[in-house]
Amino acid sequence: MSSAPLALTRSQLEKICETFPTPFHIYDEKRIRENARAMKDAFSWIPGFKNYFAVKACPNPVILQILREEGFGADCSSLPELIMAEKAGITGENIMFTSNDTPAEEFVEAARLGAVLNLDDITHMETMEKSVGIPELVCFRYNPGEARTGNAIIGHPSEAKYGVTSEQILDAYSLMKEKGVKRFGLHTMVASNELNGDYFIETARMLFTLAADINKKTGVRIEFINMGGGIGIPYKPGDKAVNLSHISDGMKELYEQILIPSGLDPMRIVFECGRMVTGPYGYLVSRVRHIAEKYKTYAGLDASMANLMRPALYGAYHHISVPGKENYPSEKIYDVTGSLCENNDKFAVDRFLPELDPGDLVVIHDTGAHGYAMGFNYNGKLRSSELLLQENGKVRLIRRAERVEDYFATLSFDEETVDL
Amino acid sequence: MSSAPLALTRSQLEKICETFPTPFHIYDEKRIRENARAMKDAFSWIPGFKNYFAVKACPNPVILQILREEGFGADCSSLPELIMAEKAGITGENIMFTSNDTPAEEFVEAARLGAVLNLDDITHMETMEKSVGIPELVCFRYNPGEARTGNAIIGHPSEAKYGVTSEQILDAYSLMKEKGVKRFGLHTMVASNELNGDYFIETARMLFTLAADINKKTGVRIEFINMGGGIGIPYKPGDKAVNLSHISDGMKELYEQILIPSGLDPMRIVFECGRMVTGPYGYLVSRVRHIAEKYKTYAGLDASMANLMRPALYGAYHHISVPGKENYPSEKIYDVTGSLCENNDKFAVDRFLPELDPGDLVVIHDTGAHGYAMGFNYNGKLRSSELLLQENGKVRLIRRAERVEDYFATLSFDEETVDL
Repeated sequence: MSSAPLALTRSQLEKICETFPTPFHIYDEKRIRENARAMKDAFSWIPGFKNYFAVKACPNPVILQILREEGFGADCSSLPELIMAEKAGITGENIMFTSNDTPAEEFVEAARLGAVLNLDDITHMETMEKSVGIPELVCFRYNPGEARTGNAIIGHPSEAKYGVTSEQILDAYSLMKEKGVKRFGLHTMVASNELNGDYFIETARMLFTLAADINKKTGVRIEFINMGGGIGIPYKPGDKAVNLSHISDGMKELYEQILIPSGLDPMRIVFECGRMVTGPYGYLVSRVRHIAEKYKTYAGLDASMANLMRPALYGAYHHISVPGKENYPSEKIYDVTGSLCENNDKFAVDRFLPELDPGDLVVIHDTGAHGYAMGFNYNGKLRSSELLLQENGKVRLIRRAERVEDYFATLSFDEETVDL
Repeated sequence: MSSAPLALTRSQLEKICETFPTPFHIYDEKRIRENARAMKDAFSWIPGFKNYFAVKACPNPVILQILREEGFGADCSSLPELIMAEKAGITGENIMFTSNDTPAEEFVEAARLGAVLNLDDITHMETMEKSVGIPELVCFRYNPGEARTGNAIIGHPSEAKYGVTSEQILDAYSLMKEKGVKRFGLHTMVASNELNGDYFIETARMLFTLAADINKKTGVRIEFINMGGGIGIPYKPGDKAVNLSHISDGMKELYEQILIPSGLDPMRIVFECGRMVTGPYGYLVSRVRHIAEKYKTYAGLDASMANLMRPALYGAYHHISVPGKENYPSEKIYDVTGSLCENNDKFAVDRFLPELDPGDLVVIHDTGAHGYAMGFNYNGKLRSSELLLQENGKVRLIRRAERVEDYFATLSFDEETVDL
């Protein structure tokens, strides 16, 4: 099994459930910290290395605080995410504001926080200038188009809605320089959940070469390169975690081959990984409600795609373990289902598991990124709580479960009409 | 164009936007009422015909009140949906509680309201009995397995997590009769968004035959048959709306062929359609933020998949019109995108539209069902408001837009920990 088991026994989980009923997401603080440190260590040769944690992956201020303590910044994509970063004590250039199709009011908020503005399109130069003027530092998101192949989840760059094209990017930097921008960054994001480390080395080659080219052709000196995120995690048994040292070594070689001869040393290099930071150390804990024998056998859980949408949205695999039945043979086949009236609300299809009984706890692995974050209220489902297994061994509530009154919150307002 | 245009001009929409900024969903009360009446008319020969509106399609109490006034009931799938039905004045057997993998507490709430309990699995008999005792009326959801083929959205019944199988259903009714249940219903749901009317006639044949069989073999007299929902709507140009009279005529013939000779006349027949009731008369109104020329041309809207997830989740087609540019040639090709950092956040790919400019309003059609309802907060996106274009011509707020404080609501709570 490649994914990390939850460091709690069935009896410990049952104790937690007495206070915090299932379903809940639980995050392992110790392992998240260790993982963050391992990432920093792997890239320690890089001048000013930083990972801007992609808030969208696990938007909880307590998680952001932990990562801030480990020296991470925040990659924000919207106004509420900017506010959350600030609540977690992450401000200034520790925030990278990478948003798509950005409205003026979000530039205003990002500028107020002193965040790095990463422009997703050439039209955004005007939106930015009109809303916040010309900042000292500007970054562009580069879209290489057919020069790169992308991967299955993010699609081909040439069909992606993001970024500035090869033809546009030199003019974009030149224009910003003319307008008075003093400091420049370069960013791309061309993969999602990619397990092939070489892909990231190729991304480094692309960005290092481009930074040198920009410098040569426009005189703009890029001060940092943001490699984007997209480092995958081993969801499936047999998947291998990405070897960060391999990526780091490959990048170092290219740094020496490309950046140093181009006079671009020292160059800060940063990432904006979310999934690989918290993904493997978050777990959705749920309880079996019913074992239903139909044309197939279904284990119906008290969680649903409201708590974890990846299997329904992408057909994604998530490993499932059964606390207390670790040593039972996995020889029964189940569809493990949620309770939504949507037939794709299945956490697993034809999965071999130990024989399950109503009341059993099940742990769905690798839900620490894009898990709670993608939850919805379809079918009137309420989103679950988030817990933190602290380093001191205590379990702490870090987000309460939604209540019926939350579901009805936006139905309470003053009567208002418009006459046409 | 098959989908219904929005009955508002650009200048009327701009007037609405002065009070209620885009994006918003707007529902056309008059057309929803007309549509509800047309459905009742089409099936008026049926003794006690009723449509239980699937709350999940458009969970807004004002919409439910309108449909209640038109004689509709509510099909609820969760505790919050039961509460919403009650808020809309729909109670007792005007509620059908059709839930999957149902917890005891939801049976308790449904029983309190006097709702019809529709059991999704044989294990639910015990859950129900333990939680609310044996009610006077019980319904079972039937899953025909390989006897039916299902359709693309809902999948094959033999692989569906819902219902009681052919082998189980006779015993299930017999057991409930022994336990003291006096009144019985029969339900199925084997299609979703199906445009072939004959499919529903086949469903009627299956259920009528089964009701006769149940009566013959167990002595149980089914008093109502719930045909389920699943009647589709013409999302795409060229799609044809389902002819309800055709379905009705086919059902009438089978009623005479099967139910009358079996002594099962009068038989109440009901539906639980959601999509076909409100779907075509709801619209997502959004504004173009940026026109981005990359390797393709993107029209970036102020809405996102947080407001409408069907294109991203199912690759669903939604028609798009541009108020004020109705007479312009549709000769520019756009990807119409949302602002989420998720590459599948596209409302349309390679769509021919009139030339768009930033600031243009666009109307995304057929969002009156499974539109707002499926919204999420991924990327920190806030869900939009819902408006009603009333019969009196005024536009009324029927759900306020989410605010930043709603996004943070579940992060406010008393510190609570568990010692392990």
